[in-house]
Amino acid sequence: MNYSNQFIKMDRAKLLDKVSNKMSPKRFQHVLGVEKAAIYLAKKYGGSIEKASIAALTHDYAKERSDQEFKEMIKRKKLDEDLLKWGNPIWHGVVGAFFVAEELGIEDEDILQAIKLHTTGSADMDLLDKIIYVADYIEPGRDFPGVDEARKIADENLDRAVAYEAKHTLAHLIEEEMAVYPKSLETYNYWVLKMKK
Amino acid sequence: MNYSNQFIKMDRAKLLDKVSNKMSPKRFQHVLGVEKAAIYLAKKYGGSIEKASIAALTHDYAKERSDQEFKEMIKRKKLDEDLLKWGNPIWHGVVGAFFVAEELGIEDEDILQAIKLHTTGSADMDLLDKIIYVADYIEPGRDFPGVDEARKIADENLDRAVAYEAKHTLAHLIEEEMAVYPKSLETYNYWVLKMKK
Repeated sequence: MNYSNQFIKMDRAKLLDKVSNKMSPKRFQHVLGVEKAAIYLAKKYGGSIEKASIAALTHDYAKERSDQEFKEMIKRKKLDEDLLKWGNPIWHGVVGAFFVAEELGIEDEDILQAIKLHTTGSADMDLLDKIIYVADYIEPGRDFPGVDEARKIADENLDRAVAYEAKHTLAHLIEEEMAVYPKSLETYNYWVLKMKK
Repeated sequence: MNYSNQFIKMDRAKLLDKVSNKMSPKRFQHVLGVEKAAIYLAKKYGGSIEKASIAALTHDYAKERSDQEFKEMIKRKKLDEDLLKWGNPIWHGVVGAFFVAEELGIEDEDILQAIKLHTTGSADMDLLDKIIYVADYIEPGRDFPGVDEARKIADENLDRAVAYEAKHTLAHLIEEEMAVYPKSLETYNYWVLKMKK
């Protein structure tokens, strides 16, 4: 795929190079899987294929930064100080988008928002946000109980796939007794109740 | 039990009469069960038996009020307007305490707080709050998968019982695709993570 130069000032090959330099080969494979799933969903639901590609390739760009780097970014960008109590699973999206913006020169707010929301989701998600949130969950390399059902639902109804993911992500965190970021509950309350009706 | 007249200006028999007039016989049996469990826990963990009795007997005092009555109380007491989006499961505690205060003349802040928090819990709970929160879950009339384990844990460590209840309540709501009040997540995040360490 050739990029239009509207959203990022480099071609896809260069972006692949920059992204792969920032992560393990295993994570890079995951990123390529998310791009594949995101492009598939963008075609299916009428989203921008180029934005889906760029957001997918950059969604985990900052995942391997140190806690210290995230904390410095939170302070420098004057983000909500409550964020400091959380950790990499939350930071790599909502704070990671700032690394993407600064280091890759991406200014498109749709792409940056999709990166910010890719882990927690939100009550308020546009098409690209949903595509990246779901693609991250169902990409071909994922293998967990329920992933095939999630893929099937994503093929039928994107909003239902968002609800399925929000519910099962929350259930998994609770089963494992892990902390749940309030935004993830907001996503569950909005999408699960909306799709239940 | 005779009351000291410090926390409520009536004896227990009169309180039983007033409470039973406001609810179905089935709910009144539940209330008596919660009192039994609460007094047991208060003796075990060194809490006030009188406060445990009064808070237990009044915790569901407003449960059978109409939605309209709760909405009017929320407005009249200028409570957080976000509450209007919720319903009886949340209102009967956090708003119900105002009916208890006005109609039964209870002014003791410990008792009123225990009523307010009895459904959702909180990160910040004192001994009476924990006693009522847990007693409501394990009273002799309760019969659901896990209640015997909850009773066993409550007999060993009250904080662990709070964590168990917070986790399993949340898991149950999600399984049933029901809305989760953010305060319930706060309780989960604080107590489950604290007890996990």
